[in-house]
Amino acid sequence: MSDTPDSAVRTYTEQHRTAFLDDLAEWLRIPSVSAQPEHDKDVRRSAEWLSGKLAETGFPVTEIWETPGAPAVFAEWPSQDPDAPVVLVYGHHDVQPAAREDGWSTDPFEPVIRDGRMYGRGAADDKGQVFFHTLGVRAHLAATGRTTPAVHLKLLIEGEEESGSPHFRALAEERAARLAADAVIVSDTGMWDENTPTVCTGMRGLAECEIELSGPGQDIHSGSFGGAVPNPATALARLVAALHDTEGRVAVPGFYDGVAELTDTERALFAELPFDEETWLRTAASHATAGEAGYSTLERVWARPTAEVNGIGGGYQGAGSKTVIPSSAMVKLSFRLVAGQDPERIQEAVRAWAEARIPAGVRHRITFSPATRPCLTPLDHPALQAVARAMGRAFGKKILFTREGGSGPAADLQDVLGAPVLFLGISVPSDGWHGPDEKVELDLLLKGVETAAHLWSELADALR
Amino acid sequence: MSDTPDSAVRTYTEQHRTAFLDDLAEWLRIPSVSAQPEHDKDVRRSAEWLSGKLAETGFPVTEIWETPGAPAVFAEWPSQDPDAPVVLVYGHHDVQPAAREDGWSTDPFEPVIRDGRMYGRGAADDKGQVFFHTLGVRAHLAATGRTTPAVHLKLLIEGEEESGSPHFRALAEERAARLAADAVIVSDTGMWDENTPTVCTGMRGLAECEIELSGPGQDIHSGSFGGAVPNPATALARLVAALHDTEGRVAVPGFYDGVAELTDTERALFAELPFDEETWLRTAASHATAGEAGYSTLERVWARPTAEVNGIGGGYQGAGSKTVIPSSAMVKLSFRLVAGQDPERIQEAVRAWAEARIPAGVRHRITFSPATRPCLTPLDHPALQAVARAMGRAFGKKILFTREGGSGPAADLQDVLGAPVLFLGISVPSDGWHGPDEKVELDLLLKGVETAAHLWSELADALR
Repeated sequence: MSDTPDSAVRTYTEQHRTAFLDDLAEWLRIPSVSAQPEHDKDVRRSAEWLSGKLAETGFPVTEIWETPGAPAVFAEWPSQDPDAPVVLVYGHHDVQPAAREDGWSTDPFEPVIRDGRMYGRGAADDKGQVFFHTLGVRAHLAATGRTTPAVHLKLLIEGEEESGSPHFRALAEERAARLAADAVIVSDTGMWDENTPTVCTGMRGLAECEIELSGPGQDIHSGSFGGAVPNPATALARLVAALHDTEGRVAVPGFYDGVAELTDTERALFAELPFDEETWLRTAASHATAGEAGYSTLERVWARPTAEVNGIGGGYQGAGSKTVIPSSAMVKLSFRLVAGQDPERIQEAVRAWAEARIPAGVRHRITFSPATRPCLTPLDHPALQAVARAMGRAFGKKILFTREGGSGPAADLQDVLGAPVLFLGISVPSDGWHGPDEKVELDLLLKGVETAAHLWSELADALR
Repeated sequence: MSDTPDSAVRTYTEQHRTAFLDDLAEWLRIPSVSAQPEHDKDVRRSAEWLSGKLAETGFPVTEIWETPGAPAVFAEWPSQDPDAPVVLVYGHHDVQPAAREDGWSTDPFEPVIRDGRMYGRGAADDKGQVFFHTLGVRAHLAATGRTTPAVHLKLLIEGEEESGSPHFRALAEERAARLAADAVIVSDTGMWDENTPTVCTGMRGLAECEIELSGPGQDIHSGSFGGAVPNPATALARLVAALHDTEGRVAVPGFYDGVAELTDTERALFAELPFDEETWLRTAASHATAGEAGYSTLERVWARPTAEVNGIGGGYQGAGSKTVIPSSAMVKLSFRLVAGQDPERIQEAVRAWAEARIPAGVRHRITFSPATRPCLTPLDHPALQAVARAMGRAFGKKILFTREGGSGPAADLQDVLGAPVLFLGISVPSDGWHGPDEKVELDLLLKGVETAAHLWSELADALR
């Protein structure tokens, strides 16, 4: 072969572009909306369609894995090299609800290509990003002349991500032996923008709680009793006000124990991103930045733990006024966590902090929701460097690094499988996830194919 | 006459007791529920019934005064003595809604006498207490041998008190010349308990506001943006937490300016009341007392200004969790005011205090409802002493003093007419105002008649 592997991958990708896009469009036509029971059959049809397509791609093992909810798809393609590292790709085949009247220019489940973009529900989140792995592995084989991938390749594509992945952790635990891997590739995120290819190095975790304080047995008259009994809404406000110190740090004792601090290298790489605060504020629909002293906005949302009020309520909230001392008041708090923080210890710390602050005569109830762990792969991890190299070969540009401020089931895979999680996503902020006119940029989608094609060789070298 | 005036009043009252109770029962049968439009005709019928009964009692002037809502009744009985002081009696002829299924033992609008009590909606609040003035003035004339009262007597009985007196202030202002008086007697309160006759010396005022803080233009994702933009719910909690200092005092600068402090005499008299904190806490449905340092519970609810949260709300309040930074959050605050505090100045102080505390990037809207002034008649005011003497003659007991922590339209009369407001009420806490099985104690009702009979002579002496 006179081609370099990079040009061979590009040529193969271009040659199969039309069929690849036709196939993706076919998949997008299946309205696999996991949140709407009337689409249960479509979610199952989507799983079966993908399973068939993976078999057609060459995966010798394809299985539908049942859960108490929607089915997941598992596929496996062993490497002929018995020492090859094992890599698991994660994605999801369910999509957000969508209807023409939500503001779509065309039918959300009848994909169309306009101006180099494919529009349709799931084009970016997440079918497009799952699907680039099919042509990717074929291009990998074609360009390297292999008959099996350079890594022992596994795919787990769940069907309930858009419904909060209620059965995912249990599925991962139950199937841990089949899923065992040396690295997990998550293709369900994005990159900085169309011109700035980036690799995400981690996601924040999440601990959520609801605190209810109660005072009088019922709402009582603020004229007859005001000024002489504890007001639970006031007590709650004092608790929330005590959540942060004057430097914007979370004031719960022990909250920062073990927090993985940003390295100078990562801060410097974040600073290279073309971040414009005015633009970001518009995205946040906000009028000012705020937060922990000593950190930039990106550092605050990506790499620092937080405490936020998600909701607060108590007493009379209707029109006009009602002069009562409320019987109770509640606040919903969420704590975003970063690597080094343990959700269970955070929950204990929050409980102890709150209980120490509740005044006499006020009763409390603190409820925690199941927590999501943070995940982070250090910048110098060989697998992360392999992902960056694969992406760099596809894009022909310097690859920068981001993190994700949100939380997701990927961290469960890190936790259950004990493997580093690496994010490979080619979606961009303008792709409109969860909104109308969701799309994927075709150029970037094909860069995803190329990255995936390079990735198995890179990872095989890096993890050997 | 060999009778003393006191025994003459008692004899006259006893002689007319049956007819008096029959008349009251007839009035209670009219369901004059001002809050329910289907009873508009009944409220009017109640006004007409009362007007007729006052004419029958001997009032030479009786008028129905229209308002944009329900009609009020005005009556006037000039004294033959041209120098007699002018006294205005305030009460209301409308009642709270009531239905058998709310827990009434009998039809709320078919009064019955059981165990020395008359049960029926309005028996105590306020028809019974308005009505004792009819037999009262007759007994006054009979016992003193007068043909006209010792004071120039006016009555204003409104029809919208249970709907918040929306047109009362305007009515009082419009008719100020007709209502002009040297003293106002409000018969729409109560006394400490069955065995402890008391006179109320004042009511707290009320300033209410709603503060809305807004941050992001819509609810935004706490993963993507958490920790980096101002959270309006957190800002609101900090504002509310700053409302009081650690001594339980309201921390709004200028809030206590001009506050009429309790005198040692009034504190000592309050302390003579048979107050049981355990019982009071049960009434308040609360588990502990709390409030401004240095004051007893009764002092806190009667004589000290307060700030209370009546309602608070923002963000997600449904089941489970939703990881958003709320777009906005609001709190409804009410400030009870005492004599010496000016509602308009308090509103300005609250606005300035709040605005100084709102962080960058958070917008605010502060809305005040129409305020109610406080009213207070000093213990040594001759008219107040006259009321206490009249009550002492009827009850044959030492009269103690209370205040009312709530707020009411009586203060408008003090403000518009520039006359001291005096409270003469014989209702007791067990009378069940606004609840099922409202009743009036017949013995106390007749003591009310006797007090009213003595009052005009006492006031004529005191105010001359």
